[in-house]
Amino acid sequence: MEMTGTLATIGYGLACIGPGIGVGIIFGLGVQAIARQPEARGILQGQMILGMAVIEALAILGFVLAFIQAG
Amino acid sequence: MEMTGTLATIGYGLACIGPGIGVGIIFGLGVQAIARQPEARGILQGQMILGMAVIEALAILGFVLAFIQAG
Amino acid sequence: MEMTGTLATIGYGLACIGPGIGVGIIFGLGVQAIARQPEARGILQGQMILGMAVIEALAILGFVLAFIQAG
Amino acid sequence: MEMTGTLATIGYGLACIGPGIGVGIIFGLGVQAIARQPEARGILQGQMILGMAVIEALAILGFVLAFIQAG
Amino acid sequence: MEMTGTLATIGYGLACIGPGIGVGIIFGLGVQAIARQPEARGILQGQMILGMAVIEALAILGFVLAFIQAG
Repeated sequence: MEMTGTLATIGYGLACIGPGIGVGIIFGLGVQAIARQPEARGILQGQMILGMAVIEALAILGFVLAFIQAG
Repeated sequence: MEMTGTLATIGYGLACIGPGIGVGIIFGLGVQAIARQPEARGILQGQMILGMAVIEALAILGFVLAFIQAG
Repeated sequence: MEMTGTLATIGYGLACIGPGIGVGIIFGLGVQAIARQPEARGILQGQMILGMAVIEALAILGFVLAFIQAG
Repeated sequence: MEMTGTLATIGYGLACIGPGIGVGIIFGLGVQAIARQPEARGILQGQMILGMAVIEALAILGFVLAFIQAG
Repeated sequence: MEMTGTLATIGYGLACIGPGIGVGIIFGLGVQAIARQPEARGILQGQMILGMAVIEALAILGFVLAFIQAG
């Protein structure tokens, strides 16, 4: 067997690095913020979900792109 | 099957690394700032959205570029 | 023996870098938050699991993609 | 299909890693600074915009270069 | 000598980067949390083991994938 596969899989893998770390930072620091101000939990959680959504969208775009450009 | 695909997918994947981490830092530290000053939430959220927009633009440019230069 | 294998394995490997670090940040900072506010453990743990789920999903998508695009 | 694409897209992707993280650090720490000194918001925001502009320029130069050198 | 080997080994190697750092962050920050709240050791240790398990699984999946796709 020769080397096979498509660069698209590598592209998706790279597209996961930033979002994986970024969402981790949001929820890690967010959990600490909630521990300090439990009564503001609703507002804080809203911000965390908002940040998570815009970041996660980047990885999902990479997933779509990997299918389109798999060749 | 041979190796297939386009370098454009890899380019988009790389373009997601920085923005993914960067937006995560903004929202992670931003959530902590809101927890400390809940009454300044409007001002802080405005700054967070502004920073998010200029960073997210970089990844979106990479997405556009990946389509243009897919070959 | 020549070089063999598929780029799909490399793609999955890359897709693990971000989620591995990200989930680590969530649970590391989350454990510290629980140590400071043990009575809020239920709420904090819920946030940690939520963040873990959305991040882990990225790596699992990479695992699926590696099988689909192995060639 | 063979492997296609241009190294220019990869170049732009790499050019986004630093600026994405850098602008994120500026706005993340900047938001915390504003939360601590809300009355100095104008001065702080000016510094943040200045830092963002010089960093963002690096990625935009990479975008221009990717078009010129796509071959 | 020609270049030999399989891309599968590289894929597994990459799959270890994130989990290695991530589990390190969990246990490093977790040990500090236990030092601050020794009486909550049982709860904290449970969270650390949970986080470690979901991260370690990513690398183990990479190990399995490397065997399947070694060619």
